[in-house]
Amino acid sequence: MPSIASPIFRPDQRSADTLRTLRITPGYVSTAEGSVLIECGNTRVLCNATIEQGVPGWLRNSGRGWVTAEYGMLPRATLTRTARESERGKVGGRTHEIQRLIGRSLRSVVDMRALGERTIILDCDVLQADGGTRTAAITGACVALAIALGKLVAAGTLKTSPLRQMIAATSVGIVDGNVLLDLAYEEDSRATVDMNVVMLADGGLVETQATAEKDSYSRAELNQLLDLAEGGIRSLFVAQNEALARAL
Amino acid sequence: MPSIASPIFRPDQRSADTLRTLRITPGYVSTAEGSVLIECGNTRVLCNATIEQGVPGWLRNSGRGWVTAEYGMLPRATLTRTARESERGKVGGRTHEIQRLIGRSLRSVVDMRALGERTIILDCDVLQADGGTRTAAITGACVALAIALGKLVAAGTLKTSPLRQMIAATSVGIVDGNVLLDLAYEEDSRATVDMNVVMLADGGLVETQATAEKDSYSRAELNQLLDLAEGGIRSLFVAQNEALARAL
Amino acid sequence: MPSIASPIFRPDQRSADTLRTLRITPGYVSTAEGSVLIECGNTRVLCNATIEQGVPGWLRNSGRGWVTAEYGMLPRATLTRTARESERGKVGGRTHEIQRLIGRSLRSVVDMRALGERTIILDCDVLQADGGTRTAAITGACVALAIALGKLVAAGTLKTSPLRQMIAATSVGIVDGNVLLDLAYEEDSRATVDMNVVMLADGGLVETQATAEKDSYSRAELNQLLDLAEGGIRSLFVAQNEALARAL
Amino acid sequence: MPSIASPIFRPDQRSADTLRTLRITPGYVSTAEGSVLIECGNTRVLCNATIEQGVPGWLRNSGRGWVTAEYGMLPRATLTRTARESERGKVGGRTHEIQRLIGRSLRSVVDMRALGERTIILDCDVLQADGGTRTAAITGACVALAIALGKLVAAGTLKTSPLRQMIAATSVGIVDGNVLLDLAYEEDSRATVDMNVVMLADGGLVETQATAEKDSYSRAELNQLLDLAEGGIRSLFVAQNEALARAL
Amino acid sequence: MPSIASPIFRPDQRSADTLRTLRITPGYVSTAEGSVLIECGNTRVLCNATIEQGVPGWLRNSGRGWVTAEYGMLPRATLTRTARESERGKVGGRTHEIQRLIGRSLRSVVDMRALGERTIILDCDVLQADGGTRTAAITGACVALAIALGKLVAAGTLKTSPLRQMIAATSVGIVDGNVLLDLAYEEDSRATVDMNVVMLADGGLVETQATAEKDSYSRAELNQLLDLAEGGIRSLFVAQNEALARAL
Amino acid sequence: MPSIASPIFRPDQRSADTLRTLRITPGYVSTAEGSVLIECGNTRVLCNATIEQGVPGWLRNSGRGWVTAEYGMLPRATLTRTARESERGKVGGRTHEIQRLIGRSLRSVVDMRALGERTIILDCDVLQADGGTRTAAITGACVALAIALGKLVAAGTLKTSPLRQMIAATSVGIVDGNVLLDLAYEEDSRATVDMNVVMLADGGLVETQATAEKDSYSRAELNQLLDLAEGGIRSLFVAQNEALARAL
Repeated sequence: MPSIASPIFRPDQRSADTLRTLRITPGYVSTAEGSVLIECGNTRVLCNATIEQGVPGWLRNSGRGWVTAEYGMLPRATLTRTARESERGKVGGRTHEIQRLIGRSLRSVVDMRALGERTIILDCDVLQADGGTRTAAITGACVALAIALGKLVAAGTLKTSPLRQMIAATSVGIVDGNVLLDLAYEEDSRATVDMNVVMLADGGLVETQATAEKDSYSRAELNQLLDLAEGGIRSLFVAQNEALARAL
Repeated sequence: MPSIASPIFRPDQRSADTLRTLRITPGYVSTAEGSVLIECGNTRVLCNATIEQGVPGWLRNSGRGWVTAEYGMLPRATLTRTARESERGKVGGRTHEIQRLIGRSLRSVVDMRALGERTIILDCDVLQADGGTRTAAITGACVALAIALGKLVAAGTLKTSPLRQMIAATSVGIVDGNVLLDLAYEEDSRATVDMNVVMLADGGLVETQATAEKDSYSRAELNQLLDLAEGGIRSLFVAQNEALARAL
Repeated sequence: MPSIASPIFRPDQRSADTLRTLRITPGYVSTAEGSVLIECGNTRVLCNATIEQGVPGWLRNSGRGWVTAEYGMLPRATLTRTARESERGKVGGRTHEIQRLIGRSLRSVVDMRALGERTIILDCDVLQADGGTRTAAITGACVALAIALGKLVAAGTLKTSPLRQMIAATSVGIVDGNVLLDLAYEEDSRATVDMNVVMLADGGLVETQATAEKDSYSRAELNQLLDLAEGGIRSLFVAQNEALARAL
Repeated sequence: MPSIASPIFRPDQRSADTLRTLRITPGYVSTAEGSVLIECGNTRVLCNATIEQGVPGWLRNSGRGWVTAEYGMLPRATLTRTARESERGKVGGRTHEIQRLIGRSLRSVVDMRALGERTIILDCDVLQADGGTRTAAITGACVALAIALGKLVAAGTLKTSPLRQMIAATSVGIVDGNVLLDLAYEEDSRATVDMNVVMLADGGLVETQATAEKDSYSRAELNQLLDLAEGGIRSLFVAQNEALARAL
Repeated sequence: MPSIASPIFRPDQRSADTLRTLRITPGYVSTAEGSVLIECGNTRVLCNATIEQGVPGWLRNSGRGWVTAEYGMLPRATLTRTARESERGKVGGRTHEIQRLIGRSLRSVVDMRALGERTIILDCDVLQADGGTRTAAITGACVALAIALGKLVAAGTLKTSPLRQMIAATSVGIVDGNVLLDLAYEEDSRATVDMNVVMLADGGLVETQATAEKDSYSRAELNQLLDLAEGGIRSLFVAQNEALARAL
Repeated sequence: MPSIASPIFRPDQRSADTLRTLRITPGYVSTAEGSVLIECGNTRVLCNATIEQGVPGWLRNSGRGWVTAEYGMLPRATLTRTARESERGKVGGRTHEIQRLIGRSLRSVVDMRALGERTIILDCDVLQADGGTRTAAITGACVALAIALGKLVAAGTLKTSPLRQMIAATSVGIVDGNVLLDLAYEEDSRATVDMNVVMLADGGLVETQATAEKDSYSRAELNQLLDLAEGGIRSLFVAQNEALARAL
C-alpha cells in the first residue's frame, strides 16, 4: 500500500506533498483584457482572457453569458517538436479534451446572469511543457478571468464581478508506489495512476478525474490522492490572490 | 446532504440503486470478428471488434499489440437530429473525449505482449441515445473484444486470450439531491453532479470522472456515488458473462 | 445470349427472379419521426426520417418544401473494416453518389407545395452490407417517410399526406451470362453488368442506371434486366404496404 | 406519347436528332502527353491525359495498369459564378459523381494488362458550360487518351496501343414532350427526363443513366431515348477519328 | 557586374529587353462579365471578371466596393502533373501568395466609392504555364476588369468607370549574370535573382518584389532590373489598349 | 516629395530613422535546440529552432539539408482576438506568405551541403503583435538558428557551422509623406507605402518587397526607403551578435 511517508526521490528534491516553484505574472501581454503567465516549475502557460459582446446562438436573448476556453501548445513546448494542429488541419483529441475541461471548470465559477450576454474566451497557450499543463491552465486562466472582469467593474460596465469565487487545479499521481503532488513530466510518464483535481476556494470539488495508466487503484488510494490534491490547491489559492493583489 | 433513502421519482419507476433493463445481444452483425448490441433501457450501442495485423508506427517491431476505439452517433440517435461529423468534416470534441476514454479503458485489460503485433479497433456506434452511451459502449465493447479474442484462441492463432479480466462501466449522479445509479437522459440533464466509473472485475478502479454540472460536490458525496457505482457494475459483470456464455 | 432459364447456382439457392428474404421493421428507434430497419438478406439499413421547419436558402418564401438524404456505412458493415468518413475528414465519392440518388428518388414522390416550407432528411445508415444497400435504402426510406408524414396528418398539421405514391428500388445484373434479380455482394462482385432500377407504384420509371463492369451490354439485355427488376419491385411494394399497415 | 416528328423549337434551330456544332482540337496544350479541347456548341472542355509510372497500392505487382479521371469546372464556366472547390476545401457530390463516371467509362476500353503498371489520369476541365459537360468530357478524354497512348507506341515503349476501341457519349432527354438529342443547358433545365448514354464503337452499351427530373418515364420512352442517343454517338465517333487523324 | 549588353542566348532568340510574343484575346468565354485569354509566349492565363452585388461583412453600409482575385492552375498546365488543390482539400501557400498579389494590385486602380457596394472577383486560371503566370494574370485581369466595368457604364448602371487607370506587370531577373526581361520557365529556374514589378500607366510603382534565389543582389542591380521592367511594362500597356479597343 | 527632415510625430517620440527598443533573449525555452525571444517595441516573437534528421522526399540521398519556417500568432497577440487557424482547419494566406518569406530568407544563409541531410524548422510564434512581426521573426530566427547550429559544432557533430553569415530584416514605409524606419502597428495602418527589406551581414540584398497601400511610389522614394532600411538593419546585426555572445 502506497504511503507518503516512505523515502522518495523526486527529480527536483521536492517532498511528496510539495508543489513545484510557482510564479504567476499578471499583465504578460498588454493586448488582452486579462493576461497571466503561469509557471509551475518548467511548465509555462500563457493565459489570456477575451471579453466579447454577444453569445452563441442557443443563448441569444436569454440574458445569460458564456465562458469557453481554447488550449494550444507551441511546437517546441516539448522536447521533440510537435506538428502544428493548424498545419494538420484539425484539432486533436487531447486538445479537445483539455479545452473542454478548462471551459467547464471556469464556467462553474461565473454567474452567467450577472455577466449578461457576453462571451469570455480563455486562451491557454503552452510555451513550455513539463507536465500538468491543463491544471496550470485552469489556475492561470482563473486569474486572467478575474483581472478581465475586474476591469469591467472598474469601468462601471458591471456593478459587481460575476466571478463567484476562485478556482484552481493540480495533478496528483502514484509513482513507484508513492502518492505524489504536482507531477513533472518525467514522473507523470512513470505514474501508474494519474489524477486531476479541480477545486473551488470554498473546498467544493468541481472535477476529479483519476485514470489508471498501468495498474488499477483502490478506493483507499483515491482518498489519499484527494487529500494530497486538496492541500496543494490551497497553496494555489494563496498564490492566485497575491497575483491578483499585484494586478489591481 | 443527499441520501438514497429519500422518496424519489425516476421516470421509469426504478429505485435509486437499480440499473435500467439491460440486454446484451452477441453476434448482432456477422461481418465483424466480435459484435455486440448492448441496450441499457433506451440506449442502444452497437459494439464491433476488428482485429487487424500490424500496429501503429511507434510500436512496430516491439512485439506488442494495440487497442483503440472509435465512437459515433447516428444522426437520429437523438430526439433532435445531430449533423453527421463526416459532413462537418471533423470529429468533435465530445466524440474525441469519449473514444479516448473507451480506448484507454479497454487497453487496461489487454496483455499487449500476449496479443502480439495486432491492432484491435472497437467501433461503438450509438443507434439510440438515452444517457450513458459512453459507459454502455465500454461494457459492450469488452464483450465484443472477448468474443473476437476467443475466436483467435479457438482458431489456434493465440494460445490463451490476452484479455486479463472483464471491465465494465456505469454512470451515477446527483439529481434533486438524490444519489442515483445509471442515469437516463432526462435525469442526466437535471443532474448537479455527473460521474462515470470504469471498474475491473477484480474491483480495481480504472477511471473515475466526477463533474459538477451546476453545483460542486463534497468528498462524502463522491464516496456515496462510488458506492452506488460499484454495486451497479457488479450486476454488469453478471450480464457480460451470461452473454459470453451464450456466444460461445 | 443470357437467359433466365439456364440452370444457375446462387449462393442462397434462390432462383434468378427471386428477391432475398425481406424484412421491414417500422419504429426501430423511437427518437425519429419515422424509423424503419430494412433487411434484404444480410443487408441491413436503418432508415430514419426527420422533419424540420424551414428550407434551404434558395427555397425560402417559395411555399415549397425540400427532401434530402444522407447515407452512411458503419465501419464493420463490411467484412474488412472501412475507415470512418468523419475520421478521414471528408465524404467520399461513392457516398455522395448514393445519397444524391436516394434524395432525388424520394423527391420525385413528394408534393413539395403540399409539404410547405419543411425539410425532410432521410438518414440511411448501413449496419451490415451484403450488396444492394442503395436500393434497400430507397425502399426503406420511403416507408420511414410515409410514417413521418402520416404523423403530421394524424396531428392535424397537414390535411393530407404530401406523399403522392410509394417508390421502391432493386438491383439486377448479369452474372456468368445469367440475368439475376437482387444481387448479393458475392454475385455483384462477379457481375459483368450491374443495374439499379427505381420505380413508382404506378409503374413509371424514375431512375435506371446500367453500368458495364467488365463487358458491355446490348439493348436486348437491357430490356431483360428491366423486366426482371419490374417484377421484383412489385414484390417490394407489397412488403412496404404491409409494414405501413403494421405501423399505423 | 412523345414523338420526334412533332414540330419543335430548339434555341439554335436544330432538329430533334441533330448534335450541336462539334469541334475537337488536338494538342490544345503542349505540356500534356495527350491534350484535346472539345467544343459541343458553347460547352468547352479541356481534356488532358497524363501517363505516370506506377499504380495505386492495391494493384502493385499485379502487372496491370489503372485509368482514372478528375473533373473540374472553372468558376466562370457558368453564367453565375460557382465557388472553387479548392476554396471550399472539398470536392462536391456532383464532381465526384461525374469523375467516377468518366473514369469508369474510359477504363472499359483500356486493356490494363497491355498498359502494364502505369496510371493514366484524365483531367477534364470545363472552360465554359452549356449542358452536356460530362458526356463531352468522355468523348474528348478518349481522344486525349488515344493520342497519349499513340505516343507511347510511337516511342516504342509499348508494342501496340492498349486502347481496344473508341468510346463516346451524349445526352438525350424529353423536353415539352419531345425526345431531343444533345441538350443545351436551357433545354436540360426544362427536361422532364434526362439521360446519359456511353457507347462503344462496336455498339455495345457501357453506361445508360436515365433520371426523371419532373415526371417518370415509360419503357417505350426509354427505348426512343436510346435510339436517338445511338444515332448521335455514331456521329461523335466520326469526329473523334477525324481529330485523331489530324493529330498523328 | 551584370550588363544587358553582353551576348546572351535566350531559348527563343529574344534579346535581353524583349517581351515574349503577347496575345490578348477579349471575350474568350461568353459567360463572364469580362473575359480575356492572355498569352505570353507559352504561358496562357484565362482571366474572368465577375461583378456581384454586395460586399464582404466589414464593408457593409460603407458605400464602398471590393475587388479580390483567385488564382488556379490546371493540373496539366505544367510539364509534370500537379495535384488539384480541391483534391488535397486546401489552397497552397504559393496560390495564396499569388492571389493576394493580384487582388492588391487590381484594388489599387479601382475607385471603391465610385464602384459602390459591389464585389469584383478576378478569376485567373492558368491553362499552360511557362513562367510569369502571376504577372500575366495581373496584366490580363486588368483588361477583363476594364471590359466588365465598361459594360456597367454602357448599361447606365454606373455613370463613369471606377477604373482610374490601367495596371500591368512583368517579371525580370538575373540569369548567368545577365539582366533579362520577361523570364520563361527555363530561365526562371536558373535565375539568381527573380523580380516582379507591378506598375501603373502613369509610371507609379505599386509592387516591387525582388527575391535572391541563389545569390544576393546589390542596389545597382536592383536599379537595372527596374529599368528593364519599366520598359517592358510600357509595351504591355500598348497591347492592353489595343485589346480593349477591339473589345468595345 | 517625402523627406526625412520634416518634423514628424511618432507614437513613441522616435525619430524617423530610429529602431524601436530591441531586446533579444536567448534560451527563452529550454526544450528547443535554439530558442530566442525577440522584442521590437511591443512586438514579441518567440523563435525556436529544431534540427531533425532527414530531409523532405525530393532531397533524399542528395547529401543536402533543408531549412523551413512556420509562423503563428497567438489569438490575443492582437488587440481584438483572432480565431485560431487550427480551429478554422486551415492555414490562411497571410500566414503562408509570411512563413514562405522567413524560410526563403534563412535558406539563403545556410550551406545545405555542409548541413547534410538534416532539416531545420524555425517556429516563429507571435506572443504580442505591434507591427513588423515578419521582419522580427527573420531577425530572431537567425539567432535561434545560429545557437542550434553552434550546439551541433560544439558537440562535434559538424566540423564548422553551415551558417555562412547573419541575416536580418526590418520594415520601412511612407506615413503622411514621411519615410520612416521600423513601423509600429498604428503607423503601418496609416502608411501609403509599406516595405520589407531582408539583408545579409555583407550588405547583399535578399528580399525587397515594397507595396503601395493607398498610393503608388516613385523610384526616388524606393531608394530613400532602401537607404533607411539598410541603416536600421546594421543596428540589428549588432544586437544579434551581442545576443549570440551572451548565449555562448
